[in-house]
Amino acid sequence: MNGAEALLRTLLDNDVNICFANPGTSEMQFVAALDRHPAMRGVLCLFEGVATGAADGYARMTGRPAATLLHLGPGLGNGLANLHNARRAHTPVVNVVGDHARSHKKLDSPLESDIDAVARTVSSWVRRPTTPADIGPDTAAAVAAAVSAGLPEDPDEGRTGTSGAVSTLVIPADISWEQGASPAPRRTARPLRTVPYIDVEATAILLAGPEPVALLIDGAALGEDGLQAAARIEKATGTRLLCPTWPARLRRGSGVPAIQPLGYRAETVGAQLADVDHLVLAGARQPVASFAYPGRPGRLTPPGTVVHHFVPQAGFDVVEALQLLADLVAPDTPPPLPAPEVPLPITDEPLRTENWAQVIGALLPGEAIVVDESITEGMDTLAPATAGSASHDVLGLTGLAIGQGIPVALGAALACPDRQVICLQADGSALYTISGLWTQAREQLDVTTVILNNRSYAILRAELERVGGGQAGRAAGALLDLGRPDIDFTAIAAGMGVTATRAETTAELAAQFAAALAEPGPHLIDAVLRPA
Amino acid sequence: MNGAEALLRTLLDNDVNICFANPGTSEMQFVAALDRHPAMRGVLCLFEGVATGAADGYARMTGRPAATLLHLGPGLGNGLANLHNARRAHTPVVNVVGDHARSHKKLDSPLESDIDAVARTVSSWVRRPTTPADIGPDTAAAVAAAVSAGLPEDPDEGRTGTSGAVSTLVIPADISWEQGASPAPRRTARPLRTVPYIDVEATAILLAGPEPVALLIDGAALGEDGLQAAARIEKATGTRLLCPTWPARLRRGSGVPAIQPLGYRAETVGAQLADVDHLVLAGARQPVASFAYPGRPGRLTPPGTVVHHFVPQAGFDVVEALQLLADLVAPDTPPPLPAPEVPLPITDEPLRTENWAQVIGALLPGEAIVVDESITEGMDTLAPATAGSASHDVLGLTGLAIGQGIPVALGAALACPDRQVICLQADGSALYTISGLWTQAREQLDVTTVILNNRSYAILRAELERVGGGQAGRAAGALLDLGRPDIDFTAIAAGMGVTATRAETTAELAAQFAAALAEPGPHLIDAVLRPA
Repeated sequence: MNGAEALLRTLLDNDVNICFANPGTSEMQFVAALDRHPAMRGVLCLFEGVATGAADGYARMTGRPAATLLHLGPGLGNGLANLHNARRAHTPVVNVVGDHARSHKKLDSPLESDIDAVARTVSSWVRRPTTPADIGPDTAAAVAAAVSAGLPEDPDEGRTGTSGAVSTLVIPADISWEQGASPAPRRTARPLRTVPYIDVEATAILLAGPEPVALLIDGAALGEDGLQAAARIEKATGTRLLCPTWPARLRRGSGVPAIQPLGYRAETVGAQLADVDHLVLAGARQPVASFAYPGRPGRLTPPGTVVHHFVPQAGFDVVEALQLLADLVAPDTPPPLPAPEVPLPITDEPLRTENWAQVIGALLPGEAIVVDESITEGMDTLAPATAGSASHDVLGLTGLAIGQGIPVALGAALACPDRQVICLQADGSALYTISGLWTQAREQLDVTTVILNNRSYAILRAELERVGGGQAGRAAGALLDLGRPDIDFTAIAAGMGVTATRAETTAELAAQFAAALAEPGPHLIDAVLRPA
Repeated sequence: MNGAEALLRTLLDNDVNICFANPGTSEMQFVAALDRHPAMRGVLCLFEGVATGAADGYARMTGRPAATLLHLGPGLGNGLANLHNARRAHTPVVNVVGDHARSHKKLDSPLESDIDAVARTVSSWVRRPTTPADIGPDTAAAVAAAVSAGLPEDPDEGRTGTSGAVSTLVIPADISWEQGASPAPRRTARPLRTVPYIDVEATAILLAGPEPVALLIDGAALGEDGLQAAARIEKATGTRLLCPTWPARLRRGSGVPAIQPLGYRAETVGAQLADVDHLVLAGARQPVASFAYPGRPGRLTPPGTVVHHFVPQAGFDVVEALQLLADLVAPDTPPPLPAPEVPLPITDEPLRTENWAQVIGALLPGEAIVVDESITEGMDTLAPATAGSASHDVLGLTGLAIGQGIPVALGAALACPDRQVICLQADGSALYTISGLWTQAREQLDVTTVILNNRSYAILRAELERVGGGQAGRAAGALLDLGRPDIDFTAIAAGMGVTATRAETTAELAAQFAAALAEPGPHLIDAVLRPA
């Protein structure tokens, strides 16, 4: 069989059965092979950043990697930003990047570029089969590398549990079309490590002691079991529970123990950690500022705070570790009671930063998947507004590369066709990968996108002052402002086949959101926010 | 002064006075400095691929580089595809990529990635200032490197004349905000080389000889002076004149000597070169296939043809060389008469591949700038349909990375505010950088975008068969088809503030095209083509 056939069969044999594709000539053999293998679902994306973001969203919800199909160096470049986010989310992704035939490389034809160099910046694993016989084993190795990530370079990282990574296969076109390939057998993922690697008892003594302790958890610990264990620890010891601002995946809502996210701003984190003598990291990294600011430290832990690495080894099951710890410090403590439900705002008001999230929180359906790229509009409002909503999962902007929301929602909806996906999407960030709406329409997915439309790169106005740039004048302001002309997201969505409406008040948003949820297929609501 | 101020002043002192920007926090000092220097025009783009494509279009028309302002590794990644096209067009571009502060790098904060590795894949020159004192000299060096490109690695390349290149400055945020920087003085570009590097006489003997010769020209030779000299040579010697399929910039139309572009398909080029014993390259590279196909050669020159490198050295003035050659072989030959004007199509017909370009050709205004990303719809039809149009410049898809058209049109319009820009844009390719329409609206540019809407990645249907993949079945076809749902480009354009209409017949296209040209500001025509 030819290489493309072996590639496709090996992916299927290794449980990779969806491929987000934006192919070109070098990938045509793979496209042709799809006709012979209906078990592989090919999903057309009209831009590679949609494909890579969708693969991220799919794997965050299933734990299994999706494949992407990308066209040479420029195609990989277009997909790079969302691969960066996937890398930061420890999501397993298998990229298949077509390259020129081996004999063609030396001719430096127009699309020639150094694919491998670009791939290495986001991938833990990059390989280029050199004969058709390689393609089966290399594909199996790519999947195995994606689902059992390597050890972190920095032992401080304490990566655990659900660690996945980005693998990239670069496939010369002639290896796809030549005969002599065969599928490789399924490879088993490396199992998670167990007890000997953590010091549960020392941690228990710390948590039960008199000094103030905070427990910062991430990764698999942010699922229901991990949060239940952590909440018991909190209840029994008074330990403060924290998670990153925008984790890859967080369980939240009524019935789920609440956890406080670290603030986006360094000042907020400073206040959250000010009186903490010990910070215990469980599946989490030591908190650092997203950006440096003149005269401020990059590490957000106060100077006197001692940092402890609970579950310091990669590949360890952080949930089991938290449960062991809970049994030590809180043997008889039940998990906390469900949070109260969020009431709808009583009055009908113009939409503002302070009220939109309450509407979403009040109407959020059970088992919703909330993709959160609301950035400025949601960073202080979304968590409190949804703590009492029906229980749901939240997928966050892990790598801060904007343009993740619409694609991740696409991938999550394909992963979980029985659940409603709500994409809370900042206006500026929406435009990077806007064509993901079209794929949502083609696949008729139950995604409701709410554009938080403040008509500016709002976060940058704040950042300009924070880096000492002062207030924006005319020229600087023009680079932060998304008006002149105002962007009409309802028209753009309609152009891509997605039903869309505009809301300017809480009542309009509530009515449109409820209607969107009630009707199958994708919807978009352009929620125009009144300036503060 | 701080580093951002020195950067901005050095750019201005070196004639870089426009910056296509999609900034983030690390670039806020540069944004703030724009308020103090109105001579630098900051143009907001809503996606980095728009910024890099616009910089390419601007420099193709002015010969001077624009700056881009990009945010860390993901921002550069988003801009990579159009930087690839700029590299292939030998366009001078100066990228300014903000990075984390030096002290912050080691913290591996969410946006950290290897910017330099990505930059090197498209840049001839990459530098990262390490102190504020470096930033002035490094910026001057970046501009100098962009406008005087280095020698090509492959001496076969024969790059000449207008050679420019992509330079990338990676600027840590603290170097932007710290004091101690100063602007660097203007640097002079390396002059073009002259006569000793070409063998004019040997070439003249070859051209005047009995054996069939073709002259393949590119670069600066595709301007009016180069084409006039080449046409005299053609007239006097019978030499066949050829240029690449999609050159960076080509002068065309009534009054300009016609030149035959090489076909996109290898078979077409084979026929064009079949009876040629000698192929002389002037500013051009030896023709190679865009992609390899099973059992076909990658080099398109027939085996018996001898290839000669006229003007083999980088940095040489190919126009002057062609004029010397013309004076030797055609001393008394005047340039050819202007081509006849193209009549309007007589009948009103549904739009098809075969007729749309005639409408454009008939109505093209004088001194138009035609940005050609029409791909399948234009590869056989556009050149004949516009050979007799009013004289104009054509900007082509040099690097085959799709999504260039809308941004290049944006940059060209800013470069030449007195000229009409016509962007002939394939539908699939339009979606990669569609938000460039918004910037066209904000800047109120005279750009008329014609979407050649065949509702498919038409080129890939052909490529699937050519690589031996056969006819597309259901699954493969779904990845090549842009219907289900049909994309409504008029709605998308309206959502971005661009007036838009839909044309389905030649008469509708003619009326809408004329109206768009008559009215200031950007317009879009969704030209829906009937399938063959």
